[in-house]
Amino acid sequence: MSDLPQGAEFDLIMRHFAPLSTAEAGAYGLRDDAASLALPPGRELIVTKDMMTAGVHFFADDPPGTLGRKILRANLSDLAAMGATPRAYAMGLALPDGMPADWLAQFATGLAEDQTEYGVTLIGGDTIRTRDGLTLSLTAFGEVPEGEALRRSTARAGDDIYVSGTIGDAALGLRVAQGGLTDLSGGERSVLLSRYRMPQPRTELGKRLIGTASAAIDISDGLVADLGHLCTASALGARIEAAVVPLSPATRAACAADTKLLARALSGGDDYELLFTAPQAVADKLAAVARDADVALSRIGALDTDLGVRMMAADGEEMHFANTGYSHL
Amino acid sequence: MSDLPQGAEFDLIMRHFAPLSTAEAGAYGLRDDAASLALPPGRELIVTKDMMTAGVHFFADDPPGTLGRKILRANLSDLAAMGATPRAYAMGLALPDGMPADWLAQFATGLAEDQTEYGVTLIGGDTIRTRDGLTLSLTAFGEVPEGEALRRSTARAGDDIYVSGTIGDAALGLRVAQGGLTDLSGGERSVLLSRYRMPQPRTELGKRLIGTASAAIDISDGLVADLGHLCTASALGARIEAAVVPLSPATRAACAADTKLLARALSGGDDYELLFTAPQAVADKLAAVARDADVALSRIGALDTDLGVRMMAADGEEMHFANTGYSHL
Repeated sequence: MSDLPQGAEFDLIMRHFAPLSTAEAGAYGLRDDAASLALPPGRELIVTKDMMTAGVHFFADDPPGTLGRKILRANLSDLAAMGATPRAYAMGLALPDGMPADWLAQFATGLAEDQTEYGVTLIGGDTIRTRDGLTLSLTAFGEVPEGEALRRSTARAGDDIYVSGTIGDAALGLRVAQGGLTDLSGGERSVLLSRYRMPQPRTELGKRLIGTASAAIDISDGLVADLGHLCTASALGARIEAAVVPLSPATRAACAADTKLLARALSGGDDYELLFTAPQAVADKLAAVARDADVALSRIGALDTDLGVRMMAADGEEMHFANTGYSHL
Repeated sequence: MSDLPQGAEFDLIMRHFAPLSTAEAGAYGLRDDAASLALPPGRELIVTKDMMTAGVHFFADDPPGTLGRKILRANLSDLAAMGATPRAYAMGLALPDGMPADWLAQFATGLAEDQTEYGVTLIGGDTIRTRDGLTLSLTAFGEVPEGEALRRSTARAGDDIYVSGTIGDAALGLRVAQGGLTDLSGGERSVLLSRYRMPQPRTELGKRLIGTASAAIDISDGLVADLGHLCTASALGARIEAAVVPLSPATRAACAADTKLLARALSGGDDYELLFTAPQAVADKLAAVARDADVALSRIGALDTDLGVRMMAADGEEMHFANTGYSHL
């Protein structure tokens, strides 16, 4: 269903979106009422859905080529947190009147690049007109061996806590997008901004953690909040050392210039790194996983039975965060 | 991911939505990054997605108990058109600030009723805050025997064309919602309005058409437009007789009072009836299907190789439609 004029809708879908659907026969070229997804024996489907809207999750004038990729990658990050191999997605698009003529072409071109990079195919969706701002809604599909999806709730006391990559870049990148952090170099600002605009879902890492990690979640709400979610789901607590949380050179530079930014880096959202737990016995195996997935893994603390998340500063004092949740524009 | 404050989001989801997820173990109580869907051997998943936004697809002050059901049912109608048995759905909700305190409770109560009626379970979704009006985005999942989904593109020349139920009620119901059709009785207005607000997806019919119908589509854009889509996909044309298109007593009364409304009934959207084709040889089998599914089926014409849709009026002249597409508020 769509409420765009039939001719215009057909043109839009066929010109820009249908070419994105060819790798899945069950997408039927986006020409049917729905799509079909058959699964190989012994596999199950993993499903996740995110919405983003102008003025809250992105700026209305953000480059269209990055917008579709950002919501796609946020969903791929959820799939990675379940250990799933990405396969397909459906795109919902509420378009305001008066979008630039080439907006949709650029939007689709961005998606095409990510389809190649992550091995996913567009299988359906809906394009509607809205009287309000742009809203995106994406549902992504991945596969795992049946019954082996990584969960938040399966961590055990004593497990080590790991994160991938670096933490806090996206939260500081949002500051850059808002015109802040002007003391940083152009290169540093650019690194942070791109981490905010274009997350790197840890797809290769996620699927390799099946059988090794005891629990996993992706960091979308922020390190402190998402570790809290994992702890709540597993009925455990966590103690982590701020000093060993991995920071990029750009975030280190920003925090050196303004020490208050460290709290923002540790609690800000949009990193899309993986946070996972594993028993100490598999530390060697994790080193091999990190090599195979080509991503740095850092042990930042351990789980215990003392509920809650305790983030310890370098001076041994516990840090407290005014806002452990996700912060937007 | 959500940008609602963590505590409030958790409360919202747990109080109103988590109880809707209990029938699918793979929903993980909505407490994980994504949901799992395993399929029985020999089945494949059918996936469809719709978006609706305030001021275009519904009125901002429509009863919340009907809004979630309307988008759910629109998606179930797509599943029915593929012959799929409904199973699950993911709900995306972009909520403006300042919604009434009980809005979400009523919204969820409506969904709960439809879950019972159609045998579906909430398995995930996303709730975000928006600075604009309410937007809903729903992805629905059904199952068919592998390779047997009904399609639009598989009709054959000479097949009969059928529709379920009655046509045009929703388009006239929209007129009622806008304050029109005041000459009708209160009962007639109420029937039309409820057909607009609360479609009846032909779930029982759709799954019984597998193996009997040669092609199918649901009527969301309007009879003329959707028949056109089926013809285009099958590279065929259609000739139908307006006089045998089934109309409800309320729509008959409206068209008797204003003959121009007939064109609106035949071309207006939102009916969510099924339009399908079948060879004459299965006419008896279709009578049994209609009985089993407890829905009226009407033969309205036949397919031929003369491309395009020809709607013949009672006087033998071809009718022409200014707008064969979907029309909104």
